[in-house]
Amino acid sequence: MNNNHTFEVCIIGGGVIGLSIAYYLAREGVKAAVFEKDVTASKASSAAAGMLGAHSELSGSPQYREFALSSQAEYTSLAEELYELTGIDIELVNKGMLKLAASEKELHDLKRQVLLHNSLSLLSAQETSEMEPYLSKETLGGLYIPGDGHVEPQKLAAAFKRAAVSMGTEIFEHTSVLSIDEQKNRLVTDRGSFSFRKLVIAGGVWSGLFTQKLGISETFYPVKGECFSVMPPAKVLTKTIFYDECYLVPKRDGRIVVGATMVPNDWNTDVSAGGISFLAEKLKAVFPELAACPIRTFWAGLRPQNTRKMPLITEHPENRNLLIAAGHYRNGILLAPGTGQYIRDLILEVPGRKHAEDFCLKKNVGVQA
Amino acid sequence: MNNNHTFEVCIIGGGVIGLSIAYYLAREGVKAAVFEKDVTASKASSAAAGMLGAHSELSGSPQYREFALSSQAEYTSLAEELYELTGIDIELVNKGMLKLAASEKELHDLKRQVLLHNSLSLLSAQETSEMEPYLSKETLGGLYIPGDGHVEPQKLAAAFKRAAVSMGTEIFEHTSVLSIDEQKNRLVTDRGSFSFRKLVIAGGVWSGLFTQKLGISETFYPVKGECFSVMPPAKVLTKTIFYDECYLVPKRDGRIVVGATMVPNDWNTDVSAGGISFLAEKLKAVFPELAACPIRTFWAGLRPQNTRKMPLITEHPENRNLLIAAGHYRNGILLAPGTGQYIRDLILEVPGRKHAEDFCLKKNVGVQA
Amino acid sequence: MNNNHTFEVCIIGGGVIGLSIAYYLAREGVKAAVFEKDVTASKASSAAAGMLGAHSELSGSPQYREFALSSQAEYTSLAEELYELTGIDIELVNKGMLKLAASEKELHDLKRQVLLHNSLSLLSAQETSEMEPYLSKETLGGLYIPGDGHVEPQKLAAAFKRAAVSMGTEIFEHTSVLSIDEQKNRLVTDRGSFSFRKLVIAGGVWSGLFTQKLGISETFYPVKGECFSVMPPAKVLTKTIFYDECYLVPKRDGRIVVGATMVPNDWNTDVSAGGISFLAEKLKAVFPELAACPIRTFWAGLRPQNTRKMPLITEHPENRNLLIAAGHYRNGILLAPGTGQYIRDLILEVPGRKHAEDFCLKKNVGVQA
Amino acid sequence: MNNNHTFEVCIIGGGVIGLSIAYYLAREGVKAAVFEKDVTASKASSAAAGMLGAHSELSGSPQYREFALSSQAEYTSLAEELYELTGIDIELVNKGMLKLAASEKELHDLKRQVLLHNSLSLLSAQETSEMEPYLSKETLGGLYIPGDGHVEPQKLAAAFKRAAVSMGTEIFEHTSVLSIDEQKNRLVTDRGSFSFRKLVIAGGVWSGLFTQKLGISETFYPVKGECFSVMPPAKVLTKTIFYDECYLVPKRDGRIVVGATMVPNDWNTDVSAGGISFLAEKLKAVFPELAACPIRTFWAGLRPQNTRKMPLITEHPENRNLLIAAGHYRNGILLAPGTGQYIRDLILEVPGRKHAEDFCLKKNVGVQA
Ligand SMILES: Cc1cc2nc3c(=O)[nH]c(=O)nc-3n(C[C@H](O)[C@H](O)[C@H](O)COP(=O)(O)OP(=O)(O)OC[C@H]3O[C@@H](n4cnc5c(N)ncnc54)[C@H](O)[C@@H]3O)c2cc1C
Ligand SMILES: Cc1cc2nc3c(=O)[nH]c(=O)nc-3n(C[C@H](O)[C@H](O)[C@H](O)COP(=O)(O)OP(=O)(O)OC[C@H]3O[C@@H](n4cnc5c(N)ncnc54)[C@H](O)[C@@H]3O)c2cc1C
Ligand SMILES: Cc1cc2nc3c(=O)[nH]c(=O)nc-3n(C[C@H](O)[C@H](O)[C@H](O)COP(=O)(O)OP(=O)(O)OC[C@H]3O[C@@H](n4cnc5c(N)ncnc54)[C@H](O)[C@@H]3O)c2cc1C
Ligand SMILES: Cc1cc2nc3c(=O)[nH]c(=O)nc-3n(C[C@H](O)[C@H](O)[C@H](O)COP(=O)(O)OP(=O)(O)OC[C@H]3O[C@@H](n4cnc5c(N)ncnc54)[C@H](O)[C@@H]3O)c2cc1C
Repeated sequence: MNNNHTFEVCIIGGGVIGLSIAYYLAREGVKAAVFEKDVTASKASSAAAGMLGAHSELSGSPQYREFALSSQAEYTSLAEELYELTGIDIELVNKGMLKLAASEKELHDLKRQVLLHNSLSLLSAQETSEMEPYLSKETLGGLYIPGDGHVEPQKLAAAFKRAAVSMGTEIFEHTSVLSIDEQKNRLVTDRGSFSFRKLVIAGGVWSGLFTQKLGISETFYPVKGECFSVMPPAKVLTKTIFYDECYLVPKRDGRIVVGATMVPNDWNTDVSAGGISFLAEKLKAVFPELAACPIRTFWAGLRPQNTRKMPLITEHPENRNLLIAAGHYRNGILLAPGTGQYIRDLILEVPGRKHAEDFCLKKNVGVQA
Repeated sequence: MNNNHTFEVCIIGGGVIGLSIAYYLAREGVKAAVFEKDVTASKASSAAAGMLGAHSELSGSPQYREFALSSQAEYTSLAEELYELTGIDIELVNKGMLKLAASEKELHDLKRQVLLHNSLSLLSAQETSEMEPYLSKETLGGLYIPGDGHVEPQKLAAAFKRAAVSMGTEIFEHTSVLSIDEQKNRLVTDRGSFSFRKLVIAGGVWSGLFTQKLGISETFYPVKGECFSVMPPAKVLTKTIFYDECYLVPKRDGRIVVGATMVPNDWNTDVSAGGISFLAEKLKAVFPELAACPIRTFWAGLRPQNTRKMPLITEHPENRNLLIAAGHYRNGILLAPGTGQYIRDLILEVPGRKHAEDFCLKKNVGVQA
Repeated sequence: MNNNHTFEVCIIGGGVIGLSIAYYLAREGVKAAVFEKDVTASKASSAAAGMLGAHSELSGSPQYREFALSSQAEYTSLAEELYELTGIDIELVNKGMLKLAASEKELHDLKRQVLLHNSLSLLSAQETSEMEPYLSKETLGGLYIPGDGHVEPQKLAAAFKRAAVSMGTEIFEHTSVLSIDEQKNRLVTDRGSFSFRKLVIAGGVWSGLFTQKLGISETFYPVKGECFSVMPPAKVLTKTIFYDECYLVPKRDGRIVVGATMVPNDWNTDVSAGGISFLAEKLKAVFPELAACPIRTFWAGLRPQNTRKMPLITEHPENRNLLIAAGHYRNGILLAPGTGQYIRDLILEVPGRKHAEDFCLKKNVGVQA
Repeated sequence: MNNNHTFEVCIIGGGVIGLSIAYYLAREGVKAAVFEKDVTASKASSAAAGMLGAHSELSGSPQYREFALSSQAEYTSLAEELYELTGIDIELVNKGMLKLAASEKELHDLKRQVLLHNSLSLLSAQETSEMEPYLSKETLGGLYIPGDGHVEPQKLAAAFKRAAVSMGTEIFEHTSVLSIDEQKNRLVTDRGSFSFRKLVIAGGVWSGLFTQKLGISETFYPVKGECFSVMPPAKVLTKTIFYDECYLVPKRDGRIVVGATMVPNDWNTDVSAGGISFLAEKLKAVFPELAACPIRTFWAGLRPQNTRKMPLITEHPENRNLLIAAGHYRNGILLAPGTGQYIRDLILEVPGRKHAEDFCLKKNVGVQA
């Protein structure tokens, strides 16, 4: 590989975030280069359950929720676009989510959520049973959130990639970015150096390596999530189920994804016997019959979290050539389209995009003295 | 399992043929029972490339071609129906097929095919190159067949199954049918006996076991086909390619299926090093760059052939309660909808269905003296 | 395949039992034919944990125990022989077994077992802890059984097979035996018919198909067992652990096999989420740290049980040309050498072999009136 | 992870080379820390065929050959030691190697090799046929090299690791070393910094990252090797076969490893259809029947080569705290014990070890001005 390539935009990381950015840039004619130390979408982005939980997942600032809702809203047209361009169907399902209360405390929380989104209303135990007949009779009622669907993250990443590559994006797999030379606008990799005009750090949980050196005070850490999937013989579930911090996502091909544990600071992606057991117990509690279904496979991934507990999607406060899009934690699939579009707009200097600015604003990103 | 179940219709074999029959019956309210010695769609039906080669594959009687064309024509609405009922997308692709001549002899054969289907016309080497830019410059021209698309056989089988089960079909996996008691309308399995009003033998290449005893003279034998798939980094192929008895099928997810060897009378489904090598050489000849692409996986399956070299889709000549739908050889995916509908019509005694009768006609099926 | 092959001995079933018989016959120059409907050692014999639990597993008649002990005693020389002949190491481990009491009731049972085998003595909780330092402090003590080691069943089967084939045994895979013609000493398979002088039914749980027709009253049924394996980073366990009906087998390559559930009458070999969870809970109870170890894989198999709850290893009471070796339930690995030798002796009409006769005696096998 | 750990010895890279060094140090009571960016033995060391080709592989200086021979000679006792310590059998096979001539040119080369090692003598085509009866009749004769056996590289690495860990070595997986601070004797990783007294760079082909910065002029590059394995039904081969730059290694479990292509400068570990085809053609040429055998699996790995075409196993010419053990190209398994011992001796300042010095001598390592 030549040592002196120059790219308009270089992107560190070939997860859904990096690939979404590459895709939205390519659509505007900007042929970025994506650097990926392993192969694309092999980390968090291949482990995600794919829920688009704009209503169910997010608390925090109204601006963040607004950003999430608008990212979610992109999916309908995005699914069509990507299918058109690549033939890949990202398996968008829009059947909504049922959030069940496992305890009085959770019932209380659901009630609060009802207040936040005034389109929602609480359901009794019987009403939830009518919605999902195989549900255990033991639950205390729940919340039905029609807007929160899901996609297949691996297909999403594959479609972003294929579309971006077909429009001229270059992807360097097996290429680790080792350091950034801010002064010279250069990137050092273990395959040679590259020059850029703009650089986007989209390295998931590994982004901390660079942000630290660039003076950003938030540190990154993984929250490992373990999952498994079961394949019931017939359709027993239509909506995503949320229960006691776990979820069941009924995929289009019949699999049900059961997730996910929360193991902070574990960089390994092994799945433990205890982790599977933990999830299986939850499954048994809500869908007793599903626990008897054949398990297909299990896996784990690292959610990219940071100490600020909010994704960083912004320009570097002191150097507008450096951008960061990392720390999407439990919601990187949901936020991928919004993040890609927002970073594109920053790079192309499109005016507007208020809401994201409001929660990712330069002044909010801690810069170390 | 109870020893005395009775079903309106019993079907031996849970491949695409058995499942298609179960599906079309279920749509008419007939809840059949499918008996499968292993798990559904684990034999030929999971190995197929999924081409719908009504124009490219078939020679023989005009009635057979007509049957094949009408089965192919079912796919557009079937794909929608199955998606509606199950959420499973059978990945129908309708981009046509390009049949290349590897030699003067093959060019000659293509010319003859042009005469058969007067909608087709021969292309020069340059014209084929324009259609598929990555094609080797060495080919002698070809035939473009717009009507011959493809589906994903495993998804087709899964969708037939899920739809049929949701409408009341019962599927007994891990259940071998051992013998048929014609007199008593009973089926003996290794899990007990079952009574039927109508019985359909859809056991793929293993159907010979029963046909022989029922006095049908055609014997069945396997023609093993080995395949592999490659995953090119970007889209390099849009149409199915047929070349020197091998084919390349560009799947919706980006894989290209390369198939298939022809090994008669081998009951093993091992893939040999020589088999892969044989196919890779063909690949190199037409798409030199594809031979350098990463291989994803390899597999083999047994095409159900019989000595008459024509599928048997018919009632038993002497016992109208026994039906047979087996011997689809290289075209069971193509013929699955047509076969399912035809057998349904025979069972429900729907009048008509001429063309199939013409090539599967009772009098044509050899009954041993 | 020719329709008129004749073999001195035909064996139905290519599990460890059928292969052991073939091996011991081959050593005496008898080249048997083994018929296997799938591939060899793909059923129970590939699912077993491989324990040789002659002391720990067996209750019942003293003759049965004696048979088991002598089969176990074969392993040392067998391992050497097979290594010599094939280069395959069956991974015999002779570090003993620790049977822990999970409750006062189990403690009581262990005490009874001490009385049976006067070589054994009960250990206090502290003594067991000293033996296995990672053991939970909660156990009530246990029994150390030095004689009960283990092997790798898949390697055992592979070695039997390779050795037998090298000495002339013929193995027909993908060949189902459909029926036995007792009168004509013929076997009907879906690949043709074969003549034999002696026939051995070693079809595991599927043997019931033939025994029933041969007038033997015991019926066969599966008891599914689910397992998984974990891979601890370092050696934490040296002995096999038995606890609350589950076990942990520390394999030579560092894996620990955790088994096994007991699901009667389920013919599927799917593994359920609930099954894994059940085992993981037991694991957590005895080795809390192991539950956090990475899980490698999971699987299930069908233990061949019969209503007499005793393996049938004998000649047919009324036809000495028919032999049966099936129903080894939880102990087919342990009993494989003994069974192979005993059947060999019956076929070669070697006098003696008292103990097996005593529990498999013709008169004891129920023959239906 | 704490930021201020200090280790006597830090090792970059958890392949066989890094693990061998850790093992030999641990045996002397030195508890090293191994840093591995992925998981141990997941790169070249898991892809190797495992041949110990001290006679067949090496040309070059007599000192290098001497080093290789003495490393090879270690294997007999090493296999025993590792088995003792870990229970893992590294599957050492000492049946020798048969190097066949595919052309007159190769025959000539073999003759030269005979002169080098005066223990060897050339065999006629008939003599080779007698040695390996399934050999094609077309070969021109060959060389029998009794001393060149093989091991199972994955088991070797697992045994080194398990033994080292049990003696106190710490292994940090998922931890990339990013840079070395020579002045402060510190290592920077993406999981924090570590201090060392001695540092060993054993990063395989990725070692170039550090050597370059340390002023060593040799640059590293990968030579990708693709392989596959076949499983013949019975033993057809006893010796390793070398033919036309490819080889066949008959493993103890019955698999035959067929390797390997030579693709310089490709950092991907994908296997191409063309690569398999290339190997299968060679296989067909020497063992026609083997090409029909079932293929089990395929894989690829990156041989760590450098521009000096000689492994670097030495101290840094200007800083004795930095050592390097990388660039073992096609012979890292062969050279692992010798390399581990030699680095151990350098660290413990054991006098002697001439032969390695002679080819890895400080003065020979190019240091950039
Ligand atoms: C079990 C689980 C379930 C989840 N479920 C959901 C869900 O239902 N919905 C949802 O919205 N989100 C979900 N998530 C979260 C979602 O997966 C993540 O937020 C998202 O994938 C993050 O994408 P990313 O591209 O930032 O990170 P990653 O996918 O981790 O990608 C980062 C990439 O950067 C590469 N990289 C890092 N450093 C370098 C370097 N120095 N040089 C080169 N390459 C580098 C890495 O190799 C990696 O491929 C889930 C996560 C987990 C683990
Ligand atoms: C490599 C390859 C490529 C192919 N490509 C194409 C293609 O592109 N297009 C196309 O149209 N066709 C293709 N085919 C052909 C197609 O796969 C077959 O024609 C079709 O799958 C036959 O379906 P089936 O249901 O009859 O057989 P199978 O799929 O073999 O199913 C028969 C089932 O019956 C079960 N069974 C048998 N006996 C018994 C018994 N006694 N008791 C219980 N169960 C029993 C079996 O276990 C099996 O599951 C291909 C085939 C191969 C091998
Ligand atoms: C989870 C589990 C753990 C176990 N652990 C242990 C243990 O630790 N120690 C121990 O001693 N035992 C153990 N066992 C029991 C042991 O596995 C069995 O007892 C033993 O494998 C039985 O061997 P088999 O050859 O009789 O049966 P199988 O292995 O089932 O083989 C029978 C074969 O016959 C073939 N067959 C059947 N019918 C036909 C036909 N009509 N035509 C052609 N082929 C036919 C089948 O395909 C099959 O391959 C365990 C079992 C399970 C499931
Ligand atoms: C197809 C093939 C066949 C072969 N056959 C043989 C054979 O028959 N006989 C033989 O002797 N040899 C053979 N070899 C060669 C042998 O595999 C290699 O020489 C040997 O494995 C090299 O070992 P290594 O530890 O140096 O490299 P590797 O196994 O590649 O290990 C290096 C490790 O360092 C890690 N690493 C690198 N950089 C960093 C970093 N910055 N931070 C943390 N970790 C890092 C890597 O992740 C890797 O795990 C073969 C090789 C191939 C590819």
